[in-house]
Amino acid sequence: MNIDRYPENPLVTPTDVPPSREDLEVVCVFNAGVARYGGEVILLMRVAERGTNDSSVVRVPVFESSGLCIREFDRSDPRNDFSDPRIIKTPEGILLTTISHLRIARSTDGRHFTVDPKPALFPDRESESFGQEDARITEIDGIYYIHYKSVSPLGICVSLAVTRDFEAFEKKGIIFGPENTDVCILPEKVGGRYVALHRPVSGFAGSPNMWIAYGPDLMSWGDHRFLMEVNRQSWDSERVGGGAIPIKTDGGWLEIYHAADFKGRYCLGAVLLDLDEPHKIIARGKEPIFVPEAVYETTGFVPNVVFTCGALVDGDSVSIYYGAADTVIAGADMSISEILETLDARL
Amino acid sequence: MNIDRYPENPLVTPTDVPPSREDLEVVCVFNAGVARYGGEVILLMRVAERGTNDSSVVRVPVFESSGLCIREFDRSDPRNDFSDPRIIKTPEGILLTTISHLRIARSTDGRHFTVDPKPALFPDRESESFGQEDARITEIDGIYYIHYKSVSPLGICVSLAVTRDFEAFEKKGIIFGPENTDVCILPEKVGGRYVALHRPVSGFAGSPNMWIAYGPDLMSWGDHRFLMEVNRQSWDSERVGGGAIPIKTDGGWLEIYHAADFKGRYCLGAVLLDLDEPHKIIARGKEPIFVPEAVYETTGFVPNVVFTCGALVDGDSVSIYYGAADTVIAGADMSISEILETLDARL
Repeated sequence: MNIDRYPENPLVTPTDVPPSREDLEVVCVFNAGVARYGGEVILLMRVAERGTNDSSVVRVPVFESSGLCIREFDRSDPRNDFSDPRIIKTPEGILLTTISHLRIARSTDGRHFTVDPKPALFPDRESESFGQEDARITEIDGIYYIHYKSVSPLGICVSLAVTRDFEAFEKKGIIFGPENTDVCILPEKVGGRYVALHRPVSGFAGSPNMWIAYGPDLMSWGDHRFLMEVNRQSWDSERVGGGAIPIKTDGGWLEIYHAADFKGRYCLGAVLLDLDEPHKIIARGKEPIFVPEAVYETTGFVPNVVFTCGALVDGDSVSIYYGAADTVIAGADMSISEILETLDARL
Repeated sequence: MNIDRYPENPLVTPTDVPPSREDLEVVCVFNAGVARYGGEVILLMRVAERGTNDSSVVRVPVFESSGLCIREFDRSDPRNDFSDPRIIKTPEGILLTTISHLRIARSTDGRHFTVDPKPALFPDRESESFGQEDARITEIDGIYYIHYKSVSPLGICVSLAVTRDFEAFEKKGIIFGPENTDVCILPEKVGGRYVALHRPVSGFAGSPNMWIAYGPDLMSWGDHRFLMEVNRQSWDSERVGGGAIPIKTDGGWLEIYHAADFKGRYCLGAVLLDLDEPHKIIARGKEPIFVPEAVYETTGFVPNVVFTCGALVDGDSVSIYYGAADTVIAGADMSISEILETLDARL
């Protein structure tokens, strides 16, 4: 299968993004929701910022009721575990080393982007005190529904915000309670109901698998059904979750999803869901369609990661925008028919 | 505060319940949803059954597509962990030692119950392969909405079934995806929406805390809000979850909930929620209102447990039906006004 990575990759890097405050540093820009609006390609990017660290202190930004605060953690304190670059484990609980907000980048050609000077959506409530992450955008009748991870000590939830113009946004609250992530709302009703892929995490049993839910109004979700599970022996052994908003094809809903193995390598795969009953899988790829290979995919804040939150379709071509190594944003074109040819109905 | 345990306690014991199959043994009957119907008190009880164990083999019933199957586990196999009487940890995953279904007991006086000879609701699908547990019943306009835990290797979910007569039941599917439990749907709409307490479990962070959700149709739930958390230093240190269906009082919705401490002792507590905005707590009790003390509460399959799924109100009196030591069903009367007097608005 042909993967046409853009020669302009990476398209957006941390140095392209002004920090939201002078005392913060942008360390990652990745995992962007994608939309077409007003003749432009819009990326709603996850921008991860941290305090100015030094050899003795790690400074973690956290939203509190009074606003964004910086908490300091002593590197020499043996009670704090800094071994994962994304988190700090302390006796009081887990914190993230960065706080993410959502920022827009705009482009007329889909390759060259201009980053907005200020955040589009910023943490402003208890459920977002550790940040907002990994937005997906579903357009229905001219309204753009933004669904994103809201992370806090209460858990990881998925919240909804809406916009008509990517200037004014309205937050609607939490649509999937903890623990959930990777929600992808389909762009039209199926059988009179809205449909969302989601990825709950269960403590009792069950891997991080993909589920599907139905609902009447985009805020409320039920009729949950198990959709697709990890494959313990393969590239998708540790977790699977929705990626881009599902693409309607003649043969079914094509979902380009992500999966990770036990070594933490994130690849993209594809699965085809029934047009009328999307909780039924028609075919699934045995192998990934896209693996981290370029240097900006294999090297960075979290190496060996390709992770998509959105794609644009033009005929048989799909332009996939993806976070690479949790550090930068890149793009690649693929053929939808070539992706479909890789799928196997027997899996 | 006065607690009038019934002199008839325990009201229902495992020997009162015919097994659903000849090769199964009823080991526990507990945690019953409660309703008034046709002049009777209905208990929709959790009946836990196991295979006939012996000194060398543990026989675990599991629902599979072909029906209920018995899986055998060798007690001498060091790869299997039998230390918790409720579960077996195997290299392939966790199983429950029993499978639960929902069975009706009927009474004209609320003290003396006759157990139906057959299950009312039995596991019949993948999401219930480890059983159905801990039903709550909410009556709205003559329809009884039964919400219960559906347990399987996919995780712990909450499903909905409806009945008008406690003879015919219709399963509606999963209303809260994994991991969730202790859902209590309020008996009327508030501000035009249905309301449910729920208890998600988050892997990333957050204790097993109580949340609240709103929805338009009893199947679909959203606008999730964090409601109430554990108290690390007290009787409710390990987990909190909804108990009885909330009781409408002049001052707010009175919720009699359960909490466990780190030693696994389950007590009942009380909290008062705002009538119009039940995501707001008006007052909460500092101490439990009901602790395991009677011998049938302190001794059994899981000692030191009182756990309610339902109560009946008659004026100022509330009759609480509860599972005792995860083994039997008991009842006790309390005064609503006395419960309210124990609550503290400052907590």
